[in-house]
Amino acid sequence: MTRPRPRPATADTADSVGAVGEFGVIARILARSGSAALAEVGPGDDAAVLRAPDGRVVACTDVLVEGRHFRRDWSSGVDIGHKAAAANLADIAAMGAVPTALLVGLACPAGTSASWLEEVADGMAAECAPFGAAVVGGDTVASAPDSTAVVLSVTALGDLGGRAPVTRSGARPGDVVAIAGRLGWSACGLAVLRRGFTSPVAAVGAHRRPSPPYAAGPAAADAGATAMCDTSDGLLADAGHLAADSGVLLDLDGGALAGAFLAAPGPLQQVAAALGGDPLAWVLTGGEDHALVATFPPGSALPPAFTAVGKVTAGAAGVQVDGVPAAQVVADLGAEGAGHVHFT
Amino acid sequence: MTRPRPRPATADTADSVGAVGEFGVIARILARSGSAALAEVGPGDDAAVLRAPDGRVVACTDVLVEGRHFRRDWSSGVDIGHKAAAANLADIAAMGAVPTALLVGLACPAGTSASWLEEVADGMAAECAPFGAAVVGGDTVASAPDSTAVVLSVTALGDLGGRAPVTRSGARPGDVVAIAGRLGWSACGLAVLRRGFTSPVAAVGAHRRPSPPYAAGPAAADAGATAMCDTSDGLLADAGHLAADSGVLLDLDGGALAGAFLAAPGPLQQVAAALGGDPLAWVLTGGEDHALVATFPPGSALPPAFTAVGKVTAGAAGVQVDGVPAAQVVADLGAEGAGHVHFT
Repeated sequence: MTRPRPRPATADTADSVGAVGEFGVIARILARSGSAALAEVGPGDDAAVLRAPDGRVVACTDVLVEGRHFRRDWSSGVDIGHKAAAANLADIAAMGAVPTALLVGLACPAGTSASWLEEVADGMAAECAPFGAAVVGGDTVASAPDSTAVVLSVTALGDLGGRAPVTRSGARPGDVVAIAGRLGWSACGLAVLRRGFTSPVAAVGAHRRPSPPYAAGPAAADAGATAMCDTSDGLLADAGHLAADSGVLLDLDGGALAGAFLAAPGPLQQVAAALGGDPLAWVLTGGEDHALVATFPPGSALPPAFTAVGKVTAGAAGVQVDGVPAAQVVADLGAEGAGHVHFT
Repeated sequence: MTRPRPRPATADTADSVGAVGEFGVIARILARSGSAALAEVGPGDDAAVLRAPDGRVVACTDVLVEGRHFRRDWSSGVDIGHKAAAANLADIAAMGAVPTALLVGLACPAGTSASWLEEVADGMAAECAPFGAAVVGGDTVASAPDSTAVVLSVTALGDLGGRAPVTRSGARPGDVVAIAGRLGWSACGLAVLRRGFTSPVAAVGAHRRPSPPYAAGPAAADAGATAMCDTSDGLLADAGHLAADSGVLLDLDGGALAGAFLAAPGPLQQVAAALGGDPLAWVLTGGEDHALVATFPPGSALPPAFTAVGKVTAGAAGVQVDGVPAAQVVADLGAEGAGHVHFT
């Protein structure tokens, strides 16, 4: 697994955004962006026009800030493009929809390498391509005068294809709780990078480029899922949002979670052993893998990507693991279980 | 005309974003955001779901960076909300569409006043309300560690209501060039603010809260406009984009422009006289009024909001005023005519 070397962050050269100019940079980015199958008017006009076959459009926005959500010395431009797209495309999937397009708001210093921005565009294009989606619009501006950081605000659009959207509020007592995708890999990779290592490659790669189970979203909707969300902030945190919005208690089975996510040998156990930690901490609280957690009516045939890990009960809204409230589980896990706390 | 006093930019108090927390801030913002008439799933889920009655969706993104596009000592939070929304809603109108929703990506320091963000939300809600539009989603994150600036990335969605989108590329020789809205007022207001003044209020207010001629966009589409764009970057610059994309020469009539935009006494002449400048410079190159420039087939009955200011000819793609190429016009105007140059 080879990766391009990170380019200089802010070199005031002929390749800089300042030298290339706003419209030159946009042209270079768009040359790498592909085209969206449903675009009637693509990038370059006042706004894009996109067909919405379902008669509804699904839309979400996720912001990535350099130094908060990515580091250019840990991830290539291509990685960052993949990651910024994936964070949004997973939210589209979590409604039961299929992505159709991205719009990208970019703030960057004048010294930013235009070639690095092309790499970001390549990563976004590659993450979108399987859906026939692409960047259809956006805006490129100079960063705040006091900042050397790149800010990427990505909006994704999607189509439900006739499906009812699966919200966070429909879980009912008796439903089965199931998960599709990986849990803890990104957090494990981040722990590795923070300690100055770049292997195991599987974990570091998962942090750099998440692999959300996109197809599982529409499949869950088709299978009658009553509620669903993606796990951007970690399983316990995001399951907590679903539980709160549905007004139910999600009763997770620690053995089922371990069986689903830790039975096969993998980087979580390997890294946890090296660091003296508990790999279950990453499974329960690690963010950015964008697994999907969904609830299904009792007796449902789960789509193949999903594994049952608990049940919905009528207790006070919240999440518990083997009867232990999530807050206590997190406290017992210690520092590695702190998950995402913003604005600190 | 009274305005709220600017709140402290970054006070580390109980009102700060850091103290209130991500989800508390989001709840306070959404409490002020109203609801979109077409929203089937509003804010708070993984993604919003919005009806798209036309079967297509129009989408654009504009990024506003504190210290580049707004200053908190010159504009209130409400002003900035209006302005951020207007910049995007005007792009929707420039396609011939009607706005339906916004999504907002916000990066701000932990010390940002949550009450100030509520004001921004109020401004956005007020700018959207006439259309039944509202904020339906977004993301709130901490700014880059090295930055004290707020970054707002706003995506607008719109509906064409069965109209064909009006792009920048359809102008044909013989067409009439016409403009709806104001020109130069925002730049005039900015010149006033830069010199430390806050009047004339009409100009300063136009800089703080642009008044795009939203209804003129769909009206132009209905009247058969062949091309259209908004004038975010100034008339000559944006007409230049339209000319380039259509492959035509836009031949503007200086007398018609002066008649349309400088005949009635107003702040442009008043401020220009005080500063010893030429008010036509602001009309030709001032950005952020979001006037609409459109081309119509010869003999068209122009919608009431539009005034004819020139004609389309088959010359080399570009813009001229009374036969003088735009670049020469800008050079002759001097510093005030430099318009928007990004990344410098």
